Amino acid sequence: MAIQLARIRNLLIDMDGVLYRGQTALPGAAELIAFLEERGLGYLLVTNNATMSQAQFSAKLHKMGIAVPAEAIMTSSLATASYLATLAPAGTKVNVVGEEALVKELEKRGFVIAGRDAQYVVCGLDKTLTFEKLMTATIAIRNGAVFIGTNADKTYPLEKDIIPGAGSILASLIAATDVQPIVIGKPEPAMFQQSLAALNAKAEETAMLGDRPETDILGGHRAGLATILVLTGVSTREGVAQYEVQPDLIVEDLPALIRLWQKELNT
Amino acid sequence: MAIQLARIRNLLIDMDGVLYRGQTALPGAAELIAFLEERGLGYLLVTNNATMSQAQFSAKLHKMGIAVPAEAIMTSSLATASYLATLAPAGTKVNVVGEEALVKELEKRGFVIAGRDAQYVVCGLDKTLTFEKLMTATIAIRNGAVFIGTNADKTYPLEKDIIPGAGSILASLIAATDVQPIVIGKPEPAMFQQSLAALNAKAEETAMLGDRPETDILGGHRAGLATILVLTGVSTREGVAQYEVQPDLIVEDLPALIRLWQKELNT
Repeated sequence: MAIQLARIRNLLIDMDGVLYRGQTALPGAAELIAFLEERGLGYLLVTNNATMSQAQFSAKLHKMGIAVPAEAIMTSSLATASYLATLAPAGTKVNVVGEEALVKELEKRGFVIAGRDAQYVVCGLDKTLTFEKLMTATIAIRNGAVFIGTNADKTYPLEKDIIPGAGSILASLIAATDVQPIVIGKPEPAMFQQSLAALNAKAEETAMLGDRPETDILGGHRAGLATILVLTGVSTREGVAQYEVQPDLIVEDLPALIRLWQKELNT
Repeated sequence: MAIQLARIRNLLIDMDGVLYRGQTALPGAAELIAFLEERGLGYLLVTNNATMSQAQFSAKLHKMGIAVPAEAIMTSSLATASYLATLAPAGTKVNVVGEEALVKELEKRGFVIAGRDAQYVVCGLDKTLTFEKLMTATIAIRNGAVFIGTNADKTYPLEKDIIPGAGSILASLIAATDVQPIVIGKPEPAMFQQSLAALNAKAEETAMLGDRPETDILGGHRAGLATILVLTGVSTREGVAQYEVQPDLIVEDLPALIRLWQKELNT
């Protein structure tokens, strides 16, 4: 096995397909969090979703019996605002194509929401999208605003339907401006870097746990983390084998991971 | 010279940059129409714009002193509806991402405007775009609806600003569905075919007159038409030289074209 679980001090955890599916917790989700807390291991739940706040995710998890404080959640909205804070001072004008959760994270950092005269355009999934918003962002980017995307997921799965994701809206702005955005979410490095910084963690002591080879595993690998794939989400063992970047560890489910980890810690 | 003007019986004419710029007629515009009518030559004004009706274009041209009947205008809305009528019977359900002009052309042909259960999705520039519209079109296409775009222009020039065009909205749906649309407008063949059919014209007796190498000239050439580029729009002689497909004739402006054509007809 390429990974030594006993050396992992911090765990970044994808949520959908790992801790829950739809509105239902997956087996071992609450136990994994309890295990990490008992052992004094750092963790952060990391999601590309930019439309819900940390508090909303925490409430959603609590409802499913998974007790996680709001501060232990890293959304792409938060990561985007933190990243932007490394580039620009409070007071900087930012145009937003996105929902309230994204706007609030930017405002918390002191950014001023603006229109076509903005110096930055931040774009995420926006279920209140209008042509006016696309137009304003297009004009701002064409005027030289730096173009940042919360995440590049082209679709967003609802219970019954697959609908356009942030990457679909980004595609529209890329076409209209001929500018490629800086993307924050998985598999790009920025959200991993923000997560490591938030945990005060070293990459070599940290693992990424997720269900998607193309975001969780690829992104974790690129960021220098150990990677663990769990098969309770979208991936099968055969499907994963097709990808160039392979996880360091594949587990059937969370109880299997906890057993393995405990065993390694106890030997 | 590669083109014999005396053998041209029909002319397809791009509007913006050829007959007018902004709200002002270009020199020779009214004279060109008069010349074609006097000589009994067929003509059609051909535009990728899917947001204005034939009547609206006719009114706009009349205001600038260019007398052209509504029937002499071929919009990409009209071409899309005509094209769709070759594929599907009246009563077929069509989902539209587009403006009133497009909806009306489809309704004229007897198509029924529908939502996610549509068999066809038609998408053009839509300044009333919402996320709801993108979502409904995405679901319909993912359910198997045939995806048609009025035109693929990524931007749309206003007097002062460059805003997203139909191609920008198409890019969003392509990202969300992983399906490429059938595009009707220039430089694709469909609108040229619809125009030749409307004029009852043969390709080898027809020329395309426009200001853009990448749409008017490339599309005209692909459709088997002679091509004439006029330098009153976006192109310079040096700029045009960069393109692979060269126009059969380049003229400075419309008066120069009329003089040349008259001379050829009189010899």
